[in-house]
Amino acid sequence: MFEFTMHLESRSQRPLYEQIYEYIKEEIQNGGLPCDERLPSTRKLAQHLQVSRSTVTLAYEQLLSEGYIDNRPGSGFFVNHLDGLYRLAGGKEMEIPERKKPAEKFLYDFSPSGVDLESFPHNAWRKISRGLLMENNEDFYQLGAPEGEEELRRTIAAYAHQARGVRCNWQQVIIGAGNDYLLMLLNAVLGEERIYALENPTYRKAYDILKILGNEVRTVDMDSHGIRVEKLEESGASIAYVMPSHHYPLGTVMPAGRRLALLKWAAEEDRYIIEDDYDSEFRYKGKPIPALQGFDGNDRVIYLGTFSKSIAPAIRISFLILPQKLLGLYRERGRCFSSTVSRMDQKILAEFIREGYYERHLNRMRSVYKSRHDTLLECLKPLAGRVDISGEYAGTHLLLTLKNGMNEEEAICFAKEAGVRIYGLSSYNIGRKKTGNTVILGYANMDEDKIRSAAEILTRVLK
Amino acid sequence: MFEFTMHLESRSQRPLYEQIYEYIKEEIQNGGLPCDERLPSTRKLAQHLQVSRSTVTLAYEQLLSEGYIDNRPGSGFFVNHLDGLYRLAGGKEMEIPERKKPAEKFLYDFSPSGVDLESFPHNAWRKISRGLLMENNEDFYQLGAPEGEEELRRTIAAYAHQARGVRCNWQQVIIGAGNDYLLMLLNAVLGEERIYALENPTYRKAYDILKILGNEVRTVDMDSHGIRVEKLEESGASIAYVMPSHHYPLGTVMPAGRRLALLKWAAEEDRYIIEDDYDSEFRYKGKPIPALQGFDGNDRVIYLGTFSKSIAPAIRISFLILPQKLLGLYRERGRCFSSTVSRMDQKILAEFIREGYYERHLNRMRSVYKSRHDTLLECLKPLAGRVDISGEYAGTHLLLTLKNGMNEEEAICFAKEAGVRIYGLSSYNIGRKKTGNTVILGYANMDEDKIRSAAEILTRVLK
Repeated sequence: MFEFTMHLESRSQRPLYEQIYEYIKEEIQNGGLPCDERLPSTRKLAQHLQVSRSTVTLAYEQLLSEGYIDNRPGSGFFVNHLDGLYRLAGGKEMEIPERKKPAEKFLYDFSPSGVDLESFPHNAWRKISRGLLMENNEDFYQLGAPEGEEELRRTIAAYAHQARGVRCNWQQVIIGAGNDYLLMLLNAVLGEERIYALENPTYRKAYDILKILGNEVRTVDMDSHGIRVEKLEESGASIAYVMPSHHYPLGTVMPAGRRLALLKWAAEEDRYIIEDDYDSEFRYKGKPIPALQGFDGNDRVIYLGTFSKSIAPAIRISFLILPQKLLGLYRERGRCFSSTVSRMDQKILAEFIREGYYERHLNRMRSVYKSRHDTLLECLKPLAGRVDISGEYAGTHLLLTLKNGMNEEEAICFAKEAGVRIYGLSSYNIGRKKTGNTVILGYANMDEDKIRSAAEILTRVLK
Repeated sequence: MFEFTMHLESRSQRPLYEQIYEYIKEEIQNGGLPCDERLPSTRKLAQHLQVSRSTVTLAYEQLLSEGYIDNRPGSGFFVNHLDGLYRLAGGKEMEIPERKKPAEKFLYDFSPSGVDLESFPHNAWRKISRGLLMENNEDFYQLGAPEGEEELRRTIAAYAHQARGVRCNWQQVIIGAGNDYLLMLLNAVLGEERIYALENPTYRKAYDILKILGNEVRTVDMDSHGIRVEKLEESGASIAYVMPSHHYPLGTVMPAGRRLALLKWAAEEDRYIIEDDYDSEFRYKGKPIPALQGFDGNDRVIYLGTFSKSIAPAIRISFLILPQKLLGLYRERGRCFSSTVSRMDQKILAEFIREGYYERHLNRMRSVYKSRHDTLLECLKPLAGRVDISGEYAGTHLLLTLKNGMNEEEAICFAKEAGVRIYGLSSYNIGRKKTGNTVILGYANMDEDKIRSAAEILTRVLK
């Protein structure tokens, strides 16, 4: 019979029963106690180890519940068959070295995806958060509805109507943690065997996501009015992902005629349009361009809105406004996904909008970004004749098309040598040859002084 | 020529240019201004309306950018072709009547998905939140890494190791807003053409989600040790979704022998095991059962953990611990999905765990739930001989198998008539006939007094 030569530490932090359990478990794992070996009775082992019988019983119960031993009634405890036991590797896991590229150093970065965070309305946000934390409301910690909180959905429906001309009732609004998640959710709701089409160039991430989710994804060329509807028709797609109020990255505004043609395309068959309305709050000339959704008389537009660009990227709240037609399908296929946004965050945002903070913040940001936009345009004047500027007066970036014989790569490279990071349009083109002669300058994250200095370098470099 | 009979309100909140723009837009939409009609020049219209010329210019620019009119150089402004113009429906959208069933009234509800929220550590949570809000750190509002914050990932890796025997480094931890989202993400990472298998009965929601995501999903029968590995082999699945430490709803603990057989199944081919470890913090006898992941020497277990059950459902934070093998695939296919949890919430949770609040909260909840568990067992004693109890000593629910000739539906119906809600096991069975004779009693959300009163009713009803 197996010899129990264990040493119990009575002053250890670990309870005695645990020491016994660990000892026997290890002996079973390393083969010291072979299978079918009979363990001593609890009485005998207690005597042998000079502990109470209940201590041994506890250890045996743990071994039983983890399946190391078996209780054969009437004949005692036996070591179980543990065929093909995998040895536990000892020691701590090694860290995986991160595969990071060394960060490149730039004096100035015209990133088109920047957001000015210095203007984040900390005080208002904090005040609302604190107020809600004080309420001590147990409900906040309960799981909310999968679509989001009624209060926030109503607030967003009213806001989207007033600010963007969206026509919906609050039940069409679905809250989710960011656009990427909502695209995933929408993809699950719409189901397989849909063909998507995106404008070319387009927001690359949306293209990648739709592909990764297993869809067939096509691209459709644009002209100066936006997506070419006759090409869209030819593509065989049944869902078009577009940015009609301010295309990314081109900045194109889809005019009313093209909008109507696109809506007609959708209405003709079982087709939908995903309207990504990511930054149309920022327009520096005239009124905002109203959303495509508001023109749609046939319930065919899926509106996708976000607070990442207008408040802060870390506010993980976006929303879908589904056509009424799709609500049945959402209930069937989308409601089983629990909400990805905490009720607390939804309440903070609802109050932020309702109390007028959001509108004030937008007005402030519009003026901050307009001033940067105007400064950049002014500073680029020395390049007149050598570049064409497009996509200005809206959003937070513009495009320079070079007419000085330089291509995009050369321009990026020369600017980089002078410490300025600019971006090529080609990376937004899907499946086309890499080099064009258009570069993108984003100005959201640079103040006027930086813009002046950076633009001064560019005017030298792009001569 | 069209007669401009508009009435400008100079004292209106709306700027004059907007009133002009709105008027012309409406006239175009309702056909008052037909297509190809020429608009008066800005000078003439300004004169006619007695406003400045720049006001009219602004209105025309807005109409131009929205595509209602065109500027034909040299000949003026013309109304655009808007074929098939969709009329905007007037008035406000109707609300969709909610299709709610009238709520049924119960005196007591043994819901198996309850969580005790009265014990939520409001003060600690609030203190940490406030402290972080005070920091005014701009970084909190920047978009974080898709995998989650390093700080929280390190904290979770250490916690999972210490409390659950999970062996991983922090880079294997991926944070997401809830289990449903993480299953979606995992599905995108693993890609198509995988066959999933779940235990039967199982957590119904996981089954539904995997189906909706377009997967082939099979079910595998269980015996008293858990999923039957030879049946799993036959199923042709390459991914098994299991709950080895505490099966939902049966409460089965998978013993070491079965664990090893399951790990062997996974190691033999390109297969993976999803270990849903949803509530193993709550065990009222002996030590917690260690996670399957810690036994795995072949890097085949995907560990899924959540704070919904252990803290509160509204804390929308769960985590995956991926095998090192899958990190490459995650980087390729999963990193393009931005994080669904705000940096602020990740920071709060990391501090909550690191400062020991989480462990104290778990200890407290274990004792709260144990007391409820013990009370329920005690109160069910009068049913001895008429029911078999199983799944006790862990989690927050147990099962009663009726031996009094009643089936599940009858028991549920009799209990309902007496004001007590109990749940049938059958609804967790996938694709089997509906009626068995086992009911589920969850006790997380009932205090001892309620449990006593409700159990007293049950002992009468289930006689």
